[in-house]
Amino acid sequence: MSFGLDNLPYGVFSRPGEPRRVGVRVGDQVLDLAAALGGDVYAAPSLNPLLALGRAAWQETRARAREAAATGDHLIPLAEVTLHLPVEVADYVDFYASLEHASNLGRMFRPDDEPLKQNWRHLPVGYHGRAGTVVVSGTPIRRPCGQRPSFGPSQKLDIEAEVGFVVGVPTRLGERAGAFEDHVFGVALVNDWSARDIQAWEYVPLGPFLGKSFATSMSAWITPLDALEEARVEGRSQEPEPLTYLRRQAPWGLDLTLHVELNGETVSTPSFRDMYWTPDQMLAHMTVNGASLRTGDLFASGTVSSPGQPGSLIELTWNGAEPVKLPGETRTFLEDGDTVTITAWTSHGISLGEVSGRILPAT
Amino acid sequence: MSFGLDNLPYGVFSRPGEPRRVGVRVGDQVLDLAAALGGDVYAAPSLNPLLALGRAAWQETRARAREAAATGDHLIPLAEVTLHLPVEVADYVDFYASLEHASNLGRMFRPDDEPLKQNWRHLPVGYHGRAGTVVVSGTPIRRPCGQRPSFGPSQKLDIEAEVGFVVGVPTRLGERAGAFEDHVFGVALVNDWSARDIQAWEYVPLGPFLGKSFATSMSAWITPLDALEEARVEGRSQEPEPLTYLRRQAPWGLDLTLHVELNGETVSTPSFRDMYWTPDQMLAHMTVNGASLRTGDLFASGTVSSPGQPGSLIELTWNGAEPVKLPGETRTFLEDGDTVTITAWTSHGISLGEVSGRILPAT
Repeated sequence: MSFGLDNLPYGVFSRPGEPRRVGVRVGDQVLDLAAALGGDVYAAPSLNPLLALGRAAWQETRARAREAAATGDHLIPLAEVTLHLPVEVADYVDFYASLEHASNLGRMFRPDDEPLKQNWRHLPVGYHGRAGTVVVSGTPIRRPCGQRPSFGPSQKLDIEAEVGFVVGVPTRLGERAGAFEDHVFGVALVNDWSARDIQAWEYVPLGPFLGKSFATSMSAWITPLDALEEARVEGRSQEPEPLTYLRRQAPWGLDLTLHVELNGETVSTPSFRDMYWTPDQMLAHMTVNGASLRTGDLFASGTVSSPGQPGSLIELTWNGAEPVKLPGETRTFLEDGDTVTITAWTSHGISLGEVSGRILPAT
Repeated sequence: MSFGLDNLPYGVFSRPGEPRRVGVRVGDQVLDLAAALGGDVYAAPSLNPLLALGRAAWQETRARAREAAATGDHLIPLAEVTLHLPVEVADYVDFYASLEHASNLGRMFRPDDEPLKQNWRHLPVGYHGRAGTVVVSGTPIRRPCGQRPSFGPSQKLDIEAEVGFVVGVPTRLGERAGAFEDHVFGVALVNDWSARDIQAWEYVPLGPFLGKSFATSMSAWITPLDALEEARVEGRSQEPEPLTYLRRQAPWGLDLTLHVELNGETVSTPSFRDMYWTPDQMLAHMTVNGASLRTGDLFASGTVSSPGQPGSLIELTWNGAEPVKLPGETRTFLEDGDTVTITAWTSHGISLGEVSGRILPAT
């Protein structure tokens, strides 16, 4: 991974005995932004104060960080720092924006019915997840217990490879969001761990709850939108045409390829380019009812599945019926000790870092 | 409303030109806790620092507040203060714990099916709501727009009369909550405003989203559990017997009667005593998968409906088919300018204050 001067993602780091502060990744080093640029905003234990400043300040910070990085000063080897959750997450919303993912799950769970529910092509279906259990990449994931419907450790522990969007500029209650780039600071990789057996029993009629709330992992590095300019693409064509408030004003599809690795083996490479609903549409939908945004809100795309390249094991193994082959073994769902790492790259070579987690046995 | 020395609920207030701080309601006055007791905890703009201290500190604060209130010093007339959102809400979870409410909605929406889904008697069904749009009682509520499925202002704007529980003491990720009274600080009244037409179109398969996320109102006063000792009752009998982790360890049913007023007329008086799932069971369920609690988490009961006394208009009017009579007019769902006020009392005369809101027209 290069992380050159055209990338410069933001994170929060600390050195032993020192407080958390904001850094920018440059190659395998961290630019200490508080030391390089000065100011309370960068000495904060999360990106939230920077997020709240808005687009002009984000662009100025990025220009100054690039200059500072070029000097070679205030750079600390990654090996010497601990990375922390970069954002104090306000509300966490998860969408369901992949046509392939929604269709696959529909086919599996409602084989006698249309795979897509009637509303799916009319709005980006979404729900609120648990903000308090969003953890930084590298945090071990404890296998959850629950009703499956008999009580015990989940036997269908799964991943969801997703792309997340971090909100900087808030709105007031009753107000709709403006342009995507005026509110959204940047992009994270997200793994929305899912206990499929718990979820299947509990989710009717109010949606997923404990099957998801035990943990959601996000990457330590947030890639600013400005680093992704060259990756912007038109969104996938939509039929029927969305209502006025959902119409795209600018291309906010992103040409990103995700790499899902299970114990070091790549098992799928879905493309974010194939998503049916684009993130600008998600933002417009989320606020059309007047719901306000807060600095630190995180909304994620839902599982990114492309034709033949699904972003979850339930799809990859067709609910366990077709195990995936790994060297010397197979997998249906996750076993204790398994490590899942999701990376993503633009076709121009910008890395979105990684989101990784290892499964601990249930207690 | 008396608000005597046996009650003493907590809130956050300010006087013009002065910062927000913690107060305790005494009759029609506010005891300025920062002035009376000193300390940064009470000078805070939310109850969260006090919430984080835990039960021993809550009890000590209550004893000192009672002594201070008896002196008559540091009391400010309610008319001179503004009341604010008392809690910085971390995650907001809403349950669906009334047998009558869940059965009524099942009968209305799935007339050919069993009213209750198969899971309902096995676990307290719940979901995450939007924490960022929880507002204090008195905040005007803007009628939301959305897909119904045609786009426009909601034509089925409804209330949900609920009882909410405020978490003080957090847990670590992977850990289950301990005893109810060791985590939960106190009780609020909640109105979970609901746009039934938006909700009905969007909620399959991931649950309510924009039909609820535009606003949730909570009372300005949080009644500490210690003020409700005499109201504690055994919970309603449950069949089948819940799994071990859901078994009640102590009586945390509450003998509270809610009064739902629409434009000053009482339209329903449901009892919290009739709830099928008790709040200790909700807490145990919410954390059985290892999901952590944070200080400021709010979980609400879902609509409190008793036999013949529903806590929502959709039940009271049977989805609009049987309008409710008010002096000189009728209502099916809420009209612009309507005011809904929910109050609650224990049978021993402890008031839980009120949660109130007036509907503004859509923009």
